[in-house]
Amino acid sequence: MPDPALLEYFPTPITSPDAAPIVIEHTSDEFTSVCPKTGHPDFGSVTLRYQPAAAPDGVCVELKSLKLYYQSFRNEGIFYEAVTHAIAETLNGQMKPAWLQLITDWKGRGGIRSVIRAEHGDVPQEWRGR
Amino acid sequence: MPDPALLEYFPTPITSPDAAPIVIEHTSDEFTSVCPKTGHPDFGSVTLRYQPAAAPDGVCVELKSLKLYYQSFRNEGIFYEAVTHAIAETLNGQMKPAWLQLITDWKGRGGIRSVIRAEHGDVPQEWRGR
Amino acid sequence: MPDPALLEYFPTPITSPDAAPIVIEHTSDEFTSVCPKTGHPDFGSVTLRYQPAAAPDGVCVELKSLKLYYQSFRNEGIFYEAVTHAIAETLNGQMKPAWLQLITDWKGRGGIRSVIRAEHGDVPQEWRGR
Amino acid sequence: MPDPALLEYFPTPITSPDAAPIVIEHTSDEFTSVCPKTGHPDFGSVTLRYQPAAAPDGVCVELKSLKLYYQSFRNEGIFYEAVTHAIAETLNGQMKPAWLQLITDWKGRGGIRSVIRAEHGDVPQEWRGR
Amino acid sequence: MPDPALLEYFPTPITSPDAAPIVIEHTSDEFTSVCPKTGHPDFGSVTLRYQPAAAPDGVCVELKSLKLYYQSFRNEGIFYEAVTHAIAETLNGQMKPAWLQLITDWKGRGGIRSVIRAEHGDVPQEWRGR
Amino acid sequence: MPDPALLEYFPTPITSPDAAPIVIEHTSDEFTSVCPKTGHPDFGSVTLRYQPAAAPDGVCVELKSLKLYYQSFRNEGIFYEAVTHAIAETLNGQMKPAWLQLITDWKGRGGIRSVIRAEHGDVPQEWRGR
Amino acid sequence: MPDPALLEYFPTPITSPDAAPIVIEHTSDEFTSVCPKTGHPDFGSVTLRYQPAAAPDGVCVELKSLKLYYQSFRNEGIFYEAVTHAIAETLNGQMKPAWLQLITDWKGRGGIRSVIRAEHGDVPQEWRGR
Amino acid sequence: MPDPALLEYFPTPITSPDAAPIVIEHTSDEFTSVCPKTGHPDFGSVTLRYQPAAAPDGVCVELKSLKLYYQSFRNEGIFYEAVTHAIAETLNGQMKPAWLQLITDWKGRGGIRSVIRAEHGDVPQEWRGR
Amino acid sequence: MPDPALLEYFPTPITSPDAAPIVIEHTSDEFTSVCPKTGHPDFGSVTLRYQPAAAPDGVCVELKSLKLYYQSFRNEGIFYEAVTHAIAETLNGQMKPAWLQLITDWKGRGGIRSVIRAEHGDVPQEWRGR
Amino acid sequence: MPDPALLEYFPTPITSPDAAPIVIEHTSDEFTSVCPKTGHPDFGSVTLRYQPAAAPDGVCVELKSLKLYYQSFRNEGIFYEAVTHAIAETLNGQMKPAWLQLITDWKGRGGIRSVIRAEHGDVPQEWRGR
Repeated sequence: MPDPALLEYFPTPITSPDAAPIVIEHTSDEFTSVCPKTGHPDFGSVTLRYQPAAAPDGVCVELKSLKLYYQSFRNEGIFYEAVTHAIAETLNGQMKPAWLQLITDWKGRGGIRSVIRAEHGDVPQEWRGR
Repeated sequence: MPDPALLEYFPTPITSPDAAPIVIEHTSDEFTSVCPKTGHPDFGSVTLRYQPAAAPDGVCVELKSLKLYYQSFRNEGIFYEAVTHAIAETLNGQMKPAWLQLITDWKGRGGIRSVIRAEHGDVPQEWRGR
Repeated sequence: MPDPALLEYFPTPITSPDAAPIVIEHTSDEFTSVCPKTGHPDFGSVTLRYQPAAAPDGVCVELKSLKLYYQSFRNEGIFYEAVTHAIAETLNGQMKPAWLQLITDWKGRGGIRSVIRAEHGDVPQEWRGR
Repeated sequence: MPDPALLEYFPTPITSPDAAPIVIEHTSDEFTSVCPKTGHPDFGSVTLRYQPAAAPDGVCVELKSLKLYYQSFRNEGIFYEAVTHAIAETLNGQMKPAWLQLITDWKGRGGIRSVIRAEHGDVPQEWRGR
Repeated sequence: MPDPALLEYFPTPITSPDAAPIVIEHTSDEFTSVCPKTGHPDFGSVTLRYQPAAAPDGVCVELKSLKLYYQSFRNEGIFYEAVTHAIAETLNGQMKPAWLQLITDWKGRGGIRSVIRAEHGDVPQEWRGR
Repeated sequence: MPDPALLEYFPTPITSPDAAPIVIEHTSDEFTSVCPKTGHPDFGSVTLRYQPAAAPDGVCVELKSLKLYYQSFRNEGIFYEAVTHAIAETLNGQMKPAWLQLITDWKGRGGIRSVIRAEHGDVPQEWRGR
Repeated sequence: MPDPALLEYFPTPITSPDAAPIVIEHTSDEFTSVCPKTGHPDFGSVTLRYQPAAAPDGVCVELKSLKLYYQSFRNEGIFYEAVTHAIAETLNGQMKPAWLQLITDWKGRGGIRSVIRAEHGDVPQEWRGR
Repeated sequence: MPDPALLEYFPTPITSPDAAPIVIEHTSDEFTSVCPKTGHPDFGSVTLRYQPAAAPDGVCVELKSLKLYYQSFRNEGIFYEAVTHAIAETLNGQMKPAWLQLITDWKGRGGIRSVIRAEHGDVPQEWRGR
Repeated sequence: MPDPALLEYFPTPITSPDAAPIVIEHTSDEFTSVCPKTGHPDFGSVTLRYQPAAAPDGVCVELKSLKLYYQSFRNEGIFYEAVTHAIAETLNGQMKPAWLQLITDWKGRGGIRSVIRAEHGDVPQEWRGR
Repeated sequence: MPDPALLEYFPTPITSPDAAPIVIEHTSDEFTSVCPKTGHPDFGSVTLRYQPAAAPDGVCVELKSLKLYYQSFRNEGIFYEAVTHAIAETLNGQMKPAWLQLITDWKGRGGIRSVIRAEHGDVPQEWRGR
């Protein structure tokens, strides 16, 4: 069962007020959940991209905790669109980043490959649609 | 014969009014129809990309029904440009999404490969031309 | 000898006044002409991309006629830049599309590969430089 | 231990006042540091992209000194985000370029690949997000 | 020794006043010069991209002469940044194009690959950063 | 319905008794038939490889007739293994080549891609398993 | 829990005594099991390659049943080597093919990718080591 | 019209009696002839691979003459199989190499790509089927 | 300092006397050591391929211990050839497999990429040279 | 001018009499010489593959000296076949390895790419033709 309590954070390393922001991107090629309609497993990759909020409140997600959170979807029956929405909402709610993108890319069912993208906040033009 | 009645929809998972929109992309590499001039089969891929309308009216297309709809073109004699236009019109008319793109990419006839793109609504700059 | 009379057209399938425009792209990997300086053959690909004019006057180029027109350059002695300019002028003059791009991509002579791009009309930003 | 004193510079070759600026990009695929949490080595690539300041003050980083500086992280325990931030701060502080980007691309830990991007100055639109 | 006198030009084929401009791109994968510091050869590719000035003054560079000009750097001791700057200045000064880009992409020394870009004139947004 | 009568042949060009044999390979990426169990279409490529019998009896398959024969499977309900076996048997029976291979490579159903290989006659070691 | 009873078979289509054998290959890119040591999921692909026994006893594995059998490993704690051995033993014991290969290719743990190969029967030289 | 008189040769550089043989391979991606049935041009690549006969009689084909010989097929109406056979026969007859392979790889007609291979002499096992 | 004592083993899963052998392959893309001549780090991948000895004595190397062993070369000054020889000798001496291959593939120094291969025991023909 | 005196060697690390041989492969992508006919530079890669003779006489070529030796061809007018033969002869004569292969792969002249292979000694079957 998806478990948002698994997620851990550490403070952004950008601590001086005039330092430029950083953009962080984590891609897992090992995501799996279950189709609620057929009961068959779905496989895909998940990309998280975000700019942490400014110090002192800004945080970054800790990699191992992110992996465990993703693993908690393993036996969950959930549609592509809902997975994407849920992960984006959870990470956005907990991290409160400047902006965030969450992209899932699925290996396909019935010969159709799918990509779902969710965004939060004011994503700069250069990152939109990626 | 192309059969729009095969298409089914489910409500968008983005139900809270301030949640960010999602962009959905489905690619089928297994599309075939028939050239009305020569009677030879055409082969290509079809990519649908759209942002569902906001809740409570927004809907998403159900994957298996999309597959069956695409299959209904199998023995239809129809030009590249008309296939693309017909699928885009049908999905746009039924879903009424915020915006929609429909791209067909054909393996080629006589040594010429073709890509046809149709759009509906106000497609954001980052998705245009893709 | 290049023969523009080989080209044939059919009306754009976008006939309803509020339907969105389509963008059409045809790529031939089998273009050849002759270098007027050395007499050696040149080989390359030709990509035509355009948005047909609106109905009722808008037309699309018929694929087989496009292939025959390209073949008519086979034994013509003509520079890269002139081939590109000539094809773009001919198609633009005959089709009068909303806009048009013509790109030739040559395998190279003397270790130098070349790409030549010509445009007509108000090409939207997302297609420029492609 | 990361040693910024290893870095050396030479004057920008753009010395005439009306000459156009240049953009310089150096990519090392041979970066390694150590994860401060697990003690395991991390491996990745580092890309530096910048436009030197105008002459007479503008400088370019000397390649061999850049290599030695990168090597000084070899046995340092440091997070992805902090490596990226540190290198960007150091090079920006010493070179004072018109603008600078520093991108690290990591092979991944626990099945998750990561890319971290830092920027300084007014990066032109065409370079953002790359 | 680099010899700008090797370069030859021919008039742009765009002679009618309302014809659209063309963009020309030549890539040589066979460039070599010598590192002035170590005496070792450097290897890379050189891409020239430009829009010729309008007729009647606009000219295009002749391919074989461009090849010979590039070859004249073969035994020259010169840094990456200076090669790029020199070629761009020479071609811009002789052709006076609407705009020009010169990009060198080097195989790398000491495990670091480099790309240097120079520009002249008002390069349109779609070509910047490429 | 698969129609072996569509196939046409022409005599092998290897007519002198001491000329070396030739090996001929034709690959179609546009094969489709129907799964007899689910009724869904299957998509794949078909590769025919053979050495014609020696003159005067040896024949080669004519390309357009091969294409039409493959198209005759379009609406046939037939398993992967049976398609492969049927095409190999038909071509071998009609051509009586020195040897023949028939390989079908399917895009996959339920996340599983399949390749089926059939052979007739004494296939030389270098062609086996390909 | 791995469940060999899920597997179903159908008779080989090679029924005439002098027909050549066929070689069948199925690849699933969607295999997952669990590391018994760390409890983390493992992800990989599984390739089955075999030549069915001759008719009338020879059988082929039914694709959907193979998929369900692979899915039954989803929550099993089992090492790479043991998974490979178990699947090969099960399929060989049930099908009694002329020969069989089973190859698992794993995405890697701790930066190390692994491939495990098992074989049964007299695998022809051209298939060994693949 | 194919003109074997265009071909020129130079003596093999392997002149000492105990020196090991060399194997030479030339690939042209710029071959074109005409289909004798439809009159449409065919495009492909041609690979010649051979081991020259031993000194003092062994010869190697001169590259520019080989290019001109290939160009002499430009407007010849000739089938794939016959082109391959003709070039192999001509080169083998003129060079009398230890062995020779001639492979043509065609871009395809009607969705079918073709590769034709001819051999002369005792081709060593490691080169067969390539 | 290379530390063979880090390596751990587990018994081969092939325990029944008539079960076929398995071949195991582990590839690490994250190997680094130090050039003893220049003091600069070397980067490469290491592939271990082996067939464990038969039960009851046969063992397999445990993945995490292999990773730690490879990491113990991190600050060792050692040539390519010696690294390869040392790892092969150590693993062969401890595991006593039926046969073993050890391949190192280095990113290159001074523009030269290197691959070094060592073997122990009677490596079957299909694995040699890989 | 090619200078064999630049080459240096070190003893093979395989010193125990029952240790298995190693195979060493060095590839330089930065080779250039000059065409003696046209005076234009040629560019290519050079691959050396060999098994050193057994200890105590066996030697390995030192990488930096190999690089300098290759650089000594930079302004030499010499044909592809002769370059290949000369390097193979020189290295074989100086190292007296168990066997040796020398492969040059050229970027092409006049649209024709070339690969030349020379061998010395009893090259095992698995390395031939590579």
